[in-house]
Amino acid sequence: MNYSMILYIIGYILRFQAGFMLLPLVTSLIYVEKDGFAFLITIVFCMIAGTLITRKKPVNKVFYTKEGCVTVAISWIVLSLTGALPFTIGGSIPNYLNAVFETVSGFTTTGASILEDVETLSHCMLIWRSFTHWIGGMGVLVFLLSLLPLTGGYHMSLMRAESPGPSVSKLVPKVQSTAKLLYTIYIGITIAEIIFLLLGGMPVFDTICTAFGTAGTGGFGVRADSIAGYSTYIQVVVTVFMILFGINFSFYYLLLARKFLHALHIEEVWYYLGIIAVAILAITMNIHGLYDNIGTALRDAAFQVSSIITTTGFATADFNVWPGFSKTILVLLMFVGACAGSTGGGIKVSRFLILCKSIRKEVVLYLHPNAVKKVKMDGKSIPHEVVRSTNIFITTYVLIFAVSVLLISLDEFDLITNFTSVAATLNNIGPGLELVGPTGNFNMFSCLSKIVLIFDMLLGRLEIFPMLLLFSKDTWKKF
Amino acid sequence: MNYSMILYIIGYILRFQAGFMLLPLVTSLIYVEKDGFAFLITIVFCMIAGTLITRKKPVNKVFYTKEGCVTVAISWIVLSLTGALPFTIGGSIPNYLNAVFETVSGFTTTGASILEDVETLSHCMLIWRSFTHWIGGMGVLVFLLSLLPLTGGYHMSLMRAESPGPSVSKLVPKVQSTAKLLYTIYIGITIAEIIFLLLGGMPVFDTICTAFGTAGTGGFGVRADSIAGYSTYIQVVVTVFMILFGINFSFYYLLLARKFLHALHIEEVWYYLGIIAVAILAITMNIHGLYDNIGTALRDAAFQVSSIITTTGFATADFNVWPGFSKTILVLLMFVGACAGSTGGGIKVSRFLILCKSIRKEVVLYLHPNAVKKVKMDGKSIPHEVVRSTNIFITTYVLIFAVSVLLISLDEFDLITNFTSVAATLNNIGPGLELVGPTGNFNMFSCLSKIVLIFDMLLGRLEIFPMLLLFSKDTWKKF
Repeated sequence: MNYSMILYIIGYILRFQAGFMLLPLVTSLIYVEKDGFAFLITIVFCMIAGTLITRKKPVNKVFYTKEGCVTVAISWIVLSLTGALPFTIGGSIPNYLNAVFETVSGFTTTGASILEDVETLSHCMLIWRSFTHWIGGMGVLVFLLSLLPLTGGYHMSLMRAESPGPSVSKLVPKVQSTAKLLYTIYIGITIAEIIFLLLGGMPVFDTICTAFGTAGTGGFGVRADSIAGYSTYIQVVVTVFMILFGINFSFYYLLLARKFLHALHIEEVWYYLGIIAVAILAITMNIHGLYDNIGTALRDAAFQVSSIITTTGFATADFNVWPGFSKTILVLLMFVGACAGSTGGGIKVSRFLILCKSIRKEVVLYLHPNAVKKVKMDGKSIPHEVVRSTNIFITTYVLIFAVSVLLISLDEFDLITNFTSVAATLNNIGPGLELVGPTGNFNMFSCLSKIVLIFDMLLGRLEIFPMLLLFSKDTWKKF
Repeated sequence: MNYSMILYIIGYILRFQAGFMLLPLVTSLIYVEKDGFAFLITIVFCMIAGTLITRKKPVNKVFYTKEGCVTVAISWIVLSLTGALPFTIGGSIPNYLNAVFETVSGFTTTGASILEDVETLSHCMLIWRSFTHWIGGMGVLVFLLSLLPLTGGYHMSLMRAESPGPSVSKLVPKVQSTAKLLYTIYIGITIAEIIFLLLGGMPVFDTICTAFGTAGTGGFGVRADSIAGYSTYIQVVVTVFMILFGINFSFYYLLLARKFLHALHIEEVWYYLGIIAVAILAITMNIHGLYDNIGTALRDAAFQVSSIITTTGFATADFNVWPGFSKTILVLLMFVGACAGSTGGGIKVSRFLILCKSIRKEVVLYLHPNAVKKVKMDGKSIPHEVVRSTNIFITTYVLIFAVSVLLISLDEFDLITNFTSVAATLNNIGPGLELVGPTGNFNMFSCLSKIVLIFDMLLGRLEIFPMLLLFSKDTWKKF
């Protein structure tokens, strides 16, 4: 294990964290809020620690997948622990565990909150909450890769460990260029959303926070009723942009590169849009009796479906009171998730595609044991390892889910609260059903449950294995 | 597809069904019940149809896995459809769909009932319900194989399609001898249970039905309160025998063959017993406040844990009123299931063992991409295909589960009822939680839901793929 290299990168992460916090600091100056001091203290701390650590470059450049995973996992933990400091120092969230929960929920783009009332927070705290979504959405290591002229072979191992999806491919041959491209697209669509929201007459501050929350598919809002209080135009804009941020970013790259035909051949995107359309239709039919007209039912169905499948977690309706069929669809969508290579969480549409195709292959193998059949996607056959690791991913996911629900159930809340609180955190969504529904929050859980849910959020965002490696004794064994 | 051979075997199944029904017919004579006519009519029908079909032996003996799966799937459907006739003809269950539900629940050893009050049934109907458990537990094709001197290579494909577990191995080189051995052990332990129950002063009729229900890990009882009304001695005997019938029958064969060391090396059995012990302990600690003394809590915990993990479904306590932690443990045990090669349902302990080991292998592969690591069980390495198909089994299982819950949710019952009714049928357990809890039944569901649950029971008992093949167009395609 190349400890010096890992430490060096974490030093950089601390310096970046200091940089990120300039945004809430500036906000505090604009709104003349004394909470700004909490950010100033944290910035100074991170800057000093980061600079001390990165003082000298490590000589040993050996860097494998193992190091990549460990670096990413530790980086995210460090980001969360330091990111939580301003909340506790400023007194907005006096309990540090709660502050860590809120920050992890931010960085992992979950959007599950322990706050009873977000409207009491100062502007700088609100924008920091939303900004963590934006940073976490595309990934902080990807950000680091796009800026830092690192040499050696560790670019790809870092990127692979942080980016979601069954297999991570580079858009362009160089990892640094890929990272830059991804962030350029990301910033571009975020700005587009800000403009559209401004056109709808949304206040500038709300616009920025909402765009951050949408872009990272996070879900933290600035109002107690999430997006419900805004106009229909705003709700439609947010719906569209949630869907856009759930699309595989390769799609946008191919569009930019004018490879239109290539872009249209990404199966995942079509299935993703198809699932959204079917779910909206089914829910609209199911709930329209609760509404005055079918238009409002359609608008609310579309918003909630897009919010859940992209794992954003914004809400414009309390789906807790919807009929069971609609609730079941939403719970299932929680697991489906968005496209691989997007900022969304969940299991990912492409994984389900691979799984369905491998089930079909299994059926054929039953019929013709000696048949040679490859699982294909986008016209190319998928390597055997990807199919295998996708299947094992699901299995691991199910086991972690089961253990989490069991631990949470020690708190003696109802089974639906327990089940959906794990579903909402492990899939990085935010709200669940019953006590953790759109109008509830996660504050009532015990410390143990909060720690379990914090881990679930991190496991979900980093797609299990990088976090799991941290706890495997094989990782720390010398070979 | 060798249609003539499939039809020939199904003809035999019909003749066997006629034979099976002699037991309720004799019972009706003993208790002088006019319901016996319903069995007589069905016996005559099955005998005529079966004899006509099996009149001439097919010439073409080609028989592959495909034919094996299709035969098993169709056989089970035919058994259920004809087995339901006496209920409707006799008027005990006038609605034929309900009768089919009850019969499928019987043969698949589920034990989920649509009856409001079993105590109104006549003796011959009660013993038929329980006898279907016993037949379905070990498998009707296995029974057929043990008796019929079939030639050709189709023994193994039939056995593999009907027997539970990730990989089916023969105890002895000849399939017919293996089938005979399995039934000998099965009958032996059933008789042992009957003797132990008789010693406890249970009425003879109750003894036979309870033993059938335990042996097949079914769960149909003859009393409205299941086993709760019997003495502690009876409850303990049933607990022990439920656990015994959940053990891999290879274990018993090895004991009989005096290969004790070999028997002790079956990992699955140890994990199975370990899970039971831990679950009983955890639940006892969780519920003892509800009881006067810890002994009664332990007895009830042990009974319910054994009943759920072996997927029997007998009850001595309404676990619906237990605290959430205990309920969560029971729900998780519903999925674990018993050992492979036992009469129990569920996903099976050995599958979970294989999965956990393959997750560990995946972690090692992350660390050392070029490492060669085999998944081992009982000291032998597991073939790659078994690991693959186990993973795909879980995936398919999860997808079928999700689709079933979605369809059931159209009935607008609560989410826990929907979730656990699918869990209870797909895992062949019987009772779930809330409306389908130990004191409830499945009668309130719509026709669509009942059909879905019937399929889930069959999918669960035949472990998905044989049933799934029936609906794959590849199966019926000419090559």
